Amino acid sequence: MADAAFLAVDWGTTNLRAWTVGRDGAPLQHWEAPLGVGRLPPGGAAQAFREQVRPALDAHALPALLSGMIGSTLGWVEVPYLPCPADAETLARGLRRIEGEGAPVWIVPGLKGPGVAGTDVMRGEETQIIGWLAEDPARRQGRRIVCHPGTHAKWARIEDGRIARFNTVMTGELFDVLSRHSVLRTGPDAQDSDEAFEAGLTAAGDGSALAARLFSARSRVVSGEMPGAWANSYLSGLLIGAEAACAPALLGADPDEPVAVVGDPRLQRLYRRALERAGRKVQTYSGDAASLSGLNALWREVGGTA
Amino acid sequence: MADAAFLAVDWGTTNLRAWTVGRDGAPLQHWEAPLGVGRLPPGGAAQAFREQVRPALDAHALPALLSGMIGSTLGWVEVPYLPCPADAETLARGLRRIEGEGAPVWIVPGLKGPGVAGTDVMRGEETQIIGWLAEDPARRQGRRIVCHPGTHAKWARIEDGRIARFNTVMTGELFDVLSRHSVLRTGPDAQDSDEAFEAGLTAAGDGSALAARLFSARSRVVSGEMPGAWANSYLSGLLIGAEAACAPALLGADPDEPVAVVGDPRLQRLYRRALERAGRKVQTYSGDAASLSGLNALWREVGGTA
Repeated sequence: MADAAFLAVDWGTTNLRAWTVGRDGAPLQHWEAPLGVGRLPPGGAAQAFREQVRPALDAHALPALLSGMIGSTLGWVEVPYLPCPADAETLARGLRRIEGEGAPVWIVPGLKGPGVAGTDVMRGEETQIIGWLAEDPARRQGRRIVCHPGTHAKWARIEDGRIARFNTVMTGELFDVLSRHSVLRTGPDAQDSDEAFEAGLTAAGDGSALAARLFSARSRVVSGEMPGAWANSYLSGLLIGAEAACAPALLGADPDEPVAVVGDPRLQRLYRRALERAGRKVQTYSGDAASLSGLNALWREVGGTA
Repeated sequence: MADAAFLAVDWGTTNLRAWTVGRDGAPLQHWEAPLGVGRLPPGGAAQAFREQVRPALDAHALPALLSGMIGSTLGWVEVPYLPCPADAETLARGLRRIEGEGAPVWIVPGLKGPGVAGTDVMRGEETQIIGWLAEDPARRQGRRIVCHPGTHAKWARIEDGRIARFNTVMTGELFDVLSRHSVLRTGPDAQDSDEAFEAGLTAAGDGSALAARLFSARSRVVSGEMPGAWANSYLSGLLIGAEAACAPALLGADPDEPVAVVGDPRLQRLYRRALERAGRKVQTYSGDAASLSGLNALWREVGGTA
């Protein structure tokens, strides 16, 4: 690994993705594993890093930059949230160095800011946003909206290259707990249905009164209006549709302002349908690429040397 | 039990409440048990009725009137939902008689109608509403709003004594699944807090963007803005506050139109606080009394004879 400059790690709650990165910023090797901090025993992150991540990429002596939930109370060390607005320089200044690891290891701080109902927080998406901004200088001018679909979807307002504020929408986790633990759960006959997803988008309406709209995933079934096997797809459409209807307005989106959806392709397809139904223009970008770009950008901010 | 005219049973998903009722409509004996249809084995309702309910009230030979989920697919026999608008006479015409039980046994049908996001349904609350209307002739004139707090809260628009339409709001079940299965769950240090409930009411705002507001029950804790032990009370305030802000408008409530909250005293206190914060006038009524009044009213409709 003579050419590698550093080890870049996106370390979330569920999964870990790591790259060795060349001096030109290009990825050399990639490794991923289900080693998210939510799956590790308390204090297990340091050991996992030394005994699994470094060996997997033959990166024993490389300096490393880690982003995501690894900086939370569940992770290696807790790195305080920095307040918005923030940009790459802010995040680089807030990097927390882990002592005693030989080659330097830094953790990227998360961000906090005023959300729709109190202080909101993120860990990991800030690095993706910084990466998305770094990929094209034009994105660092004017107002932008970035959406990260997921368990806790993040919607960020970007102003001239800075993360000005953001909101978290619990769409993914609501789907998960309702489809597994509530009266809305589907039995073993559940089947994916485009038609049911579209019906859910329609049922989402303007996104208001969500707790009332949700029950329709049950009442349509017991009243004979919808097959029970469709309830999951309908619920997915209803929740994503409500998010698409509400989240841009929370950030003061102009009517014709596009939404940059940064994430995985499956969710991007669903979000595109929901956002376009809500009259929004959509652009999609790889979440993995944004993570790597962000870690590269922060590496450059700290001078690219160790 | 020489004086008893019939056996009245409010048979829900979780619990069963039963009364022997005199010819003047007054309750003679009351019995309740955790024998809701959701707790019975398939086909277990008939056996429970014969072997537990009738003996408990020494009501072996009385005609009986049963309302609630006992008329669902989980119950004794499925009684089809009747369409709104509906009144006591409509429900009485739709009573389903169970054959082969000796003394007559009738089950009250549920109702269906157009809700905010598709056909909505209720079973049991229609009987409480009919009872609430029967308790005072003045309630059967003009427009009224009745709210039944609970796992699946029901909000009904009454027009001249008829149930015109209604919406179900999943507030109780959302609280249950989120506080037990999601990142919003509180640990063993959870404590009830009036201050946190009030903060949740404030965070509910106009009830819009609920899936975004919900995450504040977590982000306020990890950002140090709220003690973790308060998350449950805050979540309760947020969900009930969002319901109070949205549900009356779904029924086209006039600004000064009072809401009749029919239910148990603990939830009534919370709903009163939320609704008054939302600028609504509130009147409270016993849910148990309404059930008995409704079964009495339907008994009178069928002639009070068996």
